[in-house]
Amino acid sequence: MKVVVVVGGVGGARFLLGVKALLGLPPVGPGESPHEITAVVNTGDDVWMHGLRICPDLDTCMYTLGGGIDTDRGWGQRGETWVVKEQLAAYGADPDWFGLGDKDIATHLVRTRMLRAGYPLSAVTEALCDRWQPGVRLLPMSDDRVETHVVVDTPEGERKAIHFQEWWVRYRAELPAHSIVPVGADEAQPGPGVIDAISEADVVMFAPSNPVVSVGTVLAVPGLRDAMRKTDASIVGISPIIGGKPLRGMADACLTAIGVETTSQAVGQYYGSRKCSDDGVLDAWLVHTGEAADVPGVAVRAVPLLMSDVDATAEMARAALEMAGLEA
Amino acid sequence: MKVVVVVGGVGGARFLLGVKALLGLPPVGPGESPHEITAVVNTGDDVWMHGLRICPDLDTCMYTLGGGIDTDRGWGQRGETWVVKEQLAAYGADPDWFGLGDKDIATHLVRTRMLRAGYPLSAVTEALCDRWQPGVRLLPMSDDRVETHVVVDTPEGERKAIHFQEWWVRYRAELPAHSIVPVGADEAQPGPGVIDAISEADVVMFAPSNPVVSVGTVLAVPGLRDAMRKTDASIVGISPIIGGKPLRGMADACLTAIGVETTSQAVGQYYGSRKCSDDGVLDAWLVHTGEAADVPGVAVRAVPLLMSDVDATAEMARAALEMAGLEA
Repeated sequence: MKVVVVVGGVGGARFLLGVKALLGLPPVGPGESPHEITAVVNTGDDVWMHGLRICPDLDTCMYTLGGGIDTDRGWGQRGETWVVKEQLAAYGADPDWFGLGDKDIATHLVRTRMLRAGYPLSAVTEALCDRWQPGVRLLPMSDDRVETHVVVDTPEGERKAIHFQEWWVRYRAELPAHSIVPVGADEAQPGPGVIDAISEADVVMFAPSNPVVSVGTVLAVPGLRDAMRKTDASIVGISPIIGGKPLRGMADACLTAIGVETTSQAVGQYYGSRKCSDDGVLDAWLVHTGEAADVPGVAVRAVPLLMSDVDATAEMARAALEMAGLEA
Repeated sequence: MKVVVVVGGVGGARFLLGVKALLGLPPVGPGESPHEITAVVNTGDDVWMHGLRICPDLDTCMYTLGGGIDTDRGWGQRGETWVVKEQLAAYGADPDWFGLGDKDIATHLVRTRMLRAGYPLSAVTEALCDRWQPGVRLLPMSDDRVETHVVVDTPEGERKAIHFQEWWVRYRAELPAHSIVPVGADEAQPGPGVIDAISEADVVMFAPSNPVVSVGTVLAVPGLRDAMRKTDASIVGISPIIGGKPLRGMADACLTAIGVETTSQAVGQYYGSRKCSDDGVLDAWLVHTGEAADVPGVAVRAVPLLMSDVDATAEMARAALEMAGLEA
């Protein structure tokens, strides 16, 4: 079975642990399985800082599936230290609000050097995964530079577009967002293997990641939405909203910015139906137990959606498979 | 009084501590003094590693004079950690033999980012010194890329040119060197302020640094030797050789490679007399107590040349001033 999962960072990575477990792979590390899992990873959070190319979602997936993640924080590496960051601050180097750990910096150094040598991000990611052995093929949504920007009024009262990371990490999404724009997406090409993976998939799942700046950004890459609409695979979304709140993170701030309510129903409608709309991408939509959603043309089922552990997460993936008429 | 000191790394930095002390400045950090010290620093050891521009001699001077140096090792920062280096090794990233500390990496990140943004090395150095406040003006010998290479037979029996750092750090100068070449020096321009500093100096001192790959490389930048020959300042060299051995480091391997004996006399002759030769640069030459040297046209004096502490080093600088007919 070929499973494609569209993911962002922390939530997406955790969901992949469950998909792996469901398909007989160890959640962490490589393993033998007749099944093939491909993650199409959002790169709209990527950013240049201190001359380093940082890919938060790719790294979170890689560290999580490769066993290096700090499981408490959910991002960054276990046993991380912060010497370089402190020293950069001593130089007064901007920005000083981003959590750039020493272990992490090695990843960024290897990546930046390869990118500057001309390797595309997909090849760099493959090289980094040689070390981490995530047991899942991690494909950047695009090798081209796409960076999500957020139009805000700064605390100084200036309206300007800032990088998503600045909004998310520095301002903790507390500055009201006027709009969210995946800069560069218009002209980006899908990463190598992405369209083929979608076309050849048995099922495509949307992880319970941020619908706007993770899954939404992936869908903004020209050709991706079209491939989703054309594939023979069933497309099953997993709602990241539980009881009117995002499962984690501050997805509600993003939804508000694009005028979508923070409900499973509204997010399901935002993704839309392949069958009953011109640009929708869902066949099925999983919402949390006790919730309901009405999305014309989309099969909806309520199951527990708390990723409290790998087993619970695997059950979510099992429900998604079932919605596609498949079983592990 | 305007004092120019031509320096390499560890030895040069220590000598500068003594010059500062002699001229009424605190050896470490900034201070008030009617005198002005300019160090013309070798950049031939500079190297790109892991996408970072590393300037060992500039950094050693900056950390030493700014109070950040690891005084035991003589290079790198006090309390240094090595997390990034270990993680780079986990990725199999080359090279793995260079001591790239976490604190140090912050310096290289700031420098690399500024260089890539178009700032010349001299401006970058000034910016870095804003933090360290070395109390001495540190001028790179050139803003252009000059990198010393060493022609060796590798352990595998291949004759090739390797970067000086590889020869020095990886092979500990144990591979016999066929030649030592400051690649790029031919087309390098002197760094901003270097020629003026030499022209306007009251005295120019050669620190007891490596005569080949430190002072020699500085002299290889077109225009520098000429400026030395034309300045009204006296030029006083301090021998790095004591009892037929280099004061520190492995300068003898470098001298052997260029066919110069490891004696104060031979090194004095290698620098040569301004008066009695076509390309010599010395007026005076300090050798260690009990040693002698005969360099036609060069005044020679024997004084203690062990930089055992700042006071002893200041006395060396005092002797150098006296050779120039000056006093602190």
